[in-house]
Order: sequence, then structure tokens, then C-alpha cells
Amino acid sequence: MTWPTSLLKPLKIQYPIIQAPMLGITTPEMVAAISNAGGLGSLPVGGLSPEKTQALIQQTKQLTDKPFAVNLFVHDIPEVNTTEATSMLSFLKDLSTQNNLVFDEPDINSLKFYSYKEQIDVLLEENISIISFTFGIPDRESIDTLKANNVFLIGTATSVNEAILLEKAGVDAISVQGIEAGGHRGSFINEPLPQIGLMALLPQVVDAVKVPVIASGAIKDGRTIKAALVLGAQAVQVGSVFLACNESLAIPAYKNRLANIIDTETQLTRVFSGRWARGISNKMMDEITLSGLVIPPYPIMNSLTTPLRVASQKADNADYTNLWAGQAAGGAQQKPATQIFTDMVHSFESLG
Amino acid sequence: MTWPTSLLKPLKIQYPIIQAPMLGITTPEMVAAISNAGGLGSLPVGGLSPEKTQALIQQTKQLTDKPFAVNLFVHDIPEVNTTEATSMLSFLKDLSTQNNLVFDEPDINSLKFYSYKEQIDVLLEENISIISFTFGIPDRESIDTLKANNVFLIGTATSVNEAILLEKAGVDAISVQGIEAGGHRGSFINEPLPQIGLMALLPQVVDAVKVPVIASGAIKDGRTIKAALVLGAQAVQVGSVFLACNESLAIPAYKNRLANIIDTETQLTRVFSGRWARGISNKMMDEITLSGLVIPPYPIMNSLTTPLRVASQKADNADYTNLWAGQAAGGAQQKPATQIFTDMVHSFESLG
Repeated sequence: MTWPTSLLKPLKIQYPIIQAPMLGITTPEMVAAISNAGGLGSLPVGGLSPEKTQALIQQTKQLTDKPFAVNLFVHDIPEVNTTEATSMLSFLKDLSTQNNLVFDEPDINSLKFYSYKEQIDVLLEENISIISFTFGIPDRESIDTLKANNVFLIGTATSVNEAILLEKAGVDAISVQGIEAGGHRGSFINEPLPQIGLMALLPQVVDAVKVPVIASGAIKDGRTIKAALVLGAQAVQVGSVFLACNESLAIPAYKNRLANIIDTETQLTRVFSGRWARGISNKMMDEITLSGLVIPPYPIMNSLTTPLRVASQKADNADYTNLWAGQAAGGAQQKPATQIFTDMVHSFESLG
Repeated sequence: MTWPTSLLKPLKIQYPIIQAPMLGITTPEMVAAISNAGGLGSLPVGGLSPEKTQALIQQTKQLTDKPFAVNLFVHDIPEVNTTEATSMLSFLKDLSTQNNLVFDEPDINSLKFYSYKEQIDVLLEENISIISFTFGIPDRESIDTLKANNVFLIGTATSVNEAILLEKAGVDAISVQGIEAGGHRGSFINEPLPQIGLMALLPQVVDAVKVPVIASGAIKDGRTIKAALVLGAQAVQVGSVFLACNESLAIPAYKNRLANIIDTETQLTRVFSGRWARGISNKMMDEITLSGLVIPPYPIMNSLTTPLRVASQKADNADYTNLWAGQAAGGAQQKPATQIFTDMVHSFESLG
């Protein structure tokens, strides 16, 4: 089987393999490594300030002349319920104390959240030609502005109806996220949360839309790439295989868990950010869930848990931070990203 | 791509396609149609009396000379908690009354449950050469007896560790059930319930065991068959595509919902039988879940809900019976099973 070609020219890539944007994991070095190797690197900037966004883009540009995608979180910013936030914050502070972790307490009344709308000017200023997004659909004005600037737009869908809405909004390609995928679910219209396996979801989306579809979830080697292409994908997006690579921000304790986890060790949770996401089961998941406390919505919960997660990471402690991982993340290799990428390309090409 | 051959000779089939055993849906006519068409029909007899088991086998034999699999439920029979059962029964009776359905009330103190062990003599007497099972692993004595009689054994796994245990127990092949699959989950060792997508699960099981692996969940046409084979399956098992076929016991209201459902319309529930299973969302799911009542374990809950489900079916009412369906069940065709089977074979062979 040969590589599908429909996305090679628009994305200026050699192989239709996209490195998934993994906020907190992906570095400019990882993005550049993948783009330089002929794939598409994706720089995650969801929820970051315009200044931080610009700095990361400029760092990436220092490392590659190739195009890369910039990934936005598209969501509303809800009002803070001070009572709920205070209870949760108090619980998180206690967790820190019990575990000898320093909790740099945020002021609930001055939490600062950034909208994707504040980032778009920076992206245009930096001539970003590919933007992927998740959690929703940018508003009409944003889409019109981006399209007027010839930006290639990739939306994220977890159900057929989400894919149809994205196509109607004018995206150029759709990343379809199977339930296998690690990290945040991109879901934005359905209740309860869609939990559709890629084998069921991908062909149904391919049949429902005309734009190219990108398969995401459990893709890790030649056979999984080939299976996704057989199901109609024009490209694949891979995240978990890069979690433990040399260019990853994952702490050693996280990389060690990745080396040994089996298929049943991840679960969906809202405890880290307020949005559903898949990660390796750990104490923070269990203890917040057992507390019975109301989990504030994203991005409020994300800000509340940041001090505990940062402290846990500093202590190389995998118990009190998010360990995003997909259902096929076990054995993620601790190698240069370029090597992991090249091995994957060879693994596919050797299948014939 | 050509059909894998490793299971053709042992199962005496022409195509490595197994019709999934669907209790309450699959008839001897469906089983015979698939075996006669060159696939492997599977007759579900889980929890039935030895007499009923024998009658169904004999009916099937009248319709085909080809081998077919007989499918057993392998589980312990728990004690009835009378308090819980009485509360649930009372709720179910009220549901019936409110919906003008006749509730043929069972006597909680004389519920009769059959073990797979009581069925094995019948299966041997009838010279059944292929037995598949789910919910667990038959005890050592049963496996030894079946193997001494040259019965080909197919176990069901929903995680890598379940597959490894099945291989150790001596099964000849393993059916791997992705989270996409409709009907009962075969899970038997893990808590919480494994919910692993086929794209993640199948390659991991293929890597972990030496026996042939059968892919199940969301398989419906040439491309999904090919994807499963690319991932390492030696055969596929298909259920939902036959739900609405002419030989199915599904009531018209169920077939009509199948014709129109989209990917997000199924969910996992314990309300019908006490075991987790995937079906189309309906009132019975919602109302029992909202009641907050304790759901007794399988097969007790199964017996308690039977009168309501039977009455709902008799009234061609899809609200108060189980509507098993996988995540790719939408559009299940109302045609002869043979035609659906043949179309699937051609769909695969035309892919090249």
C-alpha cells in the first residue's frame, strides 16, 4: 500500500503523519524534529497567552524551515463558581501538604484565562499556514479571517455529527479522535460524552464528509497506520508514541510508567482540567474522584490543579500530575523523536 | 489482500467470517444461512436449559450439514439477594403497568438458572465440534472433556490479560471484543470494565498470544474486514450487520431504530441483564438507571427483566426491551442473511 497523497501538497509534507499536539509534553524541539523528518509537527498553544504563544512559535521556527501546525483550544470561558472552586482548592492544598508538595496557591478571584481569539493575531503575524483546533469550532469571524489568509484549518471530531458541523464551518480537514486516544477528548456537542472506537467512527465519518479525514487514536506502527488508511483516512495523527521521546517534557517517573503500562491502565477523567481526558490511572485521579467534590469546568479546574501538578512534576512524582496516554501507549520508546518517526515510516513501508 | 487461511481448515469454512451468537436475535435459520454460505454460524445457547439447547441444535442441524459453533455463557450463579430482587421486581412491575404491558411475575424464590456445565453433555451428544464461550473460562474438567472430544474452543477476551489467561487454559482461538461491539461484554477479570477500542486492543492481543485471533466490534464491510486482518486478525466476527436480517428475531420497532441510529446512540448498560452490554439508548435504560435501585448481578437481573422485555416485544414496543447494537450498527439491512454475508465477502474481495 502506498501513502495517500491528498494532504501532502496542502500541508507541504512528505509523509501523511501528524504529530499530535500534546500540551505539557510537546516542545518546539519535538515539533521541529517531526517537520524536519517529513511529517507535520504540531505546536500546542491551547489556553496560553499571546506572548507565550508567540515565543513558542518563534522558538520552533528557529529549529525548522518546514511548516508546522499550531493547535488551539476553542472553548468558552465560564464564570468561576467561587464556592465550588474554594472547596476544590482547599482539597488540593491538603493533598499537597499530605504529600510534602509545595502548593503555590492561586487567587481564585484573579484567575486569568485566554481565549483562542486573542491568539489569532499572533498566528497571522507569524505567518502560520496550518492551524488545528479542538474542543469546538472557532466563530465565523475567526474562520473567515483565517481563510482569507489562506490558513489550512484542521478541526477535531469525536462523532459523525461533530464532523458534519466542522465541514459546514469550512474546515479543510478533520481529525477523527477514536476513544483509544490519549489526552483531552475533543468532543463539543454531544451529551453524554461520545466514546466511539476508531474502527466504528472512522468509516462513518469518511462516509459522511467530503474533506480529508485524519485518523487519531491507537496509531503507533505500520499495521495501525495501514488499518487507518484502509478505513479511509488520508493521514494519521500520532501522539502516545512520542510521549517518552527525548524531546518530550514528560518527567522520568511518567516515562517509566509508560514503559510498563498495559492496555487496561488508562481511564477517562475530568479531575485534571475539568474536561474529559484519557490518562494513566494514578492517585490524583482516585483521590479527587473519591472526594465527591464538584469538579469545576475547564479551564477553571485546570488552573486550580496546576500548582499541585507542577509540584508533583518537580519532585519527579507521577502520583499527582496528569499522565496522558492512549490505550496503545504501553512501551512508548525513550528515543529521539526523529528515530521513532522514521521507524514508523519504515514499519508501514515494509508492509507492502 | 487475500483471506487468511489458518482457521479455514480447523473450522471447515470457506471464508474466515463468523456470525456472532446473539441470544434473542439469532435463530437456527440465521446460523444455517451463514454456515451454508461458507462462513461460521454461531448458535447462542447461553443460560438455556439442556433440553432447549438440544432442541435448538437439532433444529439447526435440520437446516445445514455444515459445522456451526455453539456459544456458551461461562459464569458463576450468585445467590439471590431477596430484598434487592424484590425492590427491583416491584419497580419493573410498575413500569409494566404504567405502559399497559402485561407483567408475568416470576417467583423470586424459585428462579431457575442453568450452568454451562449442564449443557456440555448435550453438546457432546450432538457431536458439536466448535464451541465458543464468553463471560469467563470453563473449569479445567470441562476443558479437558471438550478437548478429549476434539472440540475446537474459542474464548472471548476484552483485554490482553484475559487473552493470555484463555491461551493458558488451552483455547484454540480467541475472539477479541473491541468496545465498539454490541451486546454483552465478555469481560471476566478486570475492574473497572475494560473499554478498549479494537484498534488498540487487537494488535496488543496479537502480539501477546500465539493462537489465532478473531476480531470483533464494528466489522461490517470489506474495509473493516481488511483493517482487522491488517491488524493481525485471522478471522472476523460480525454481529450487528445481521441484527435486522430476515432470519433475526428482532421486532419491527427494533429493526426500524437500527435503520436510523447514528454512532452516538448506543451506550453500555447493566439494566437488562445485570452484565454490561451495549445497546441503543431507550426508556428502559433511562428509567432503571434513574431509579437508583441496586441492579442485581447476572443472571438474576436477566430473569427479573424478562417479563417486561417479553411484553414489550409482543407489543412491538422498543422502549422496554434490550436493543443490542454496536457502534457501527446504523443502517443494518433488512435482507436475507445470506445476501448480507455474500455482499460482505464481495465488498472485501473487490478491495484487492
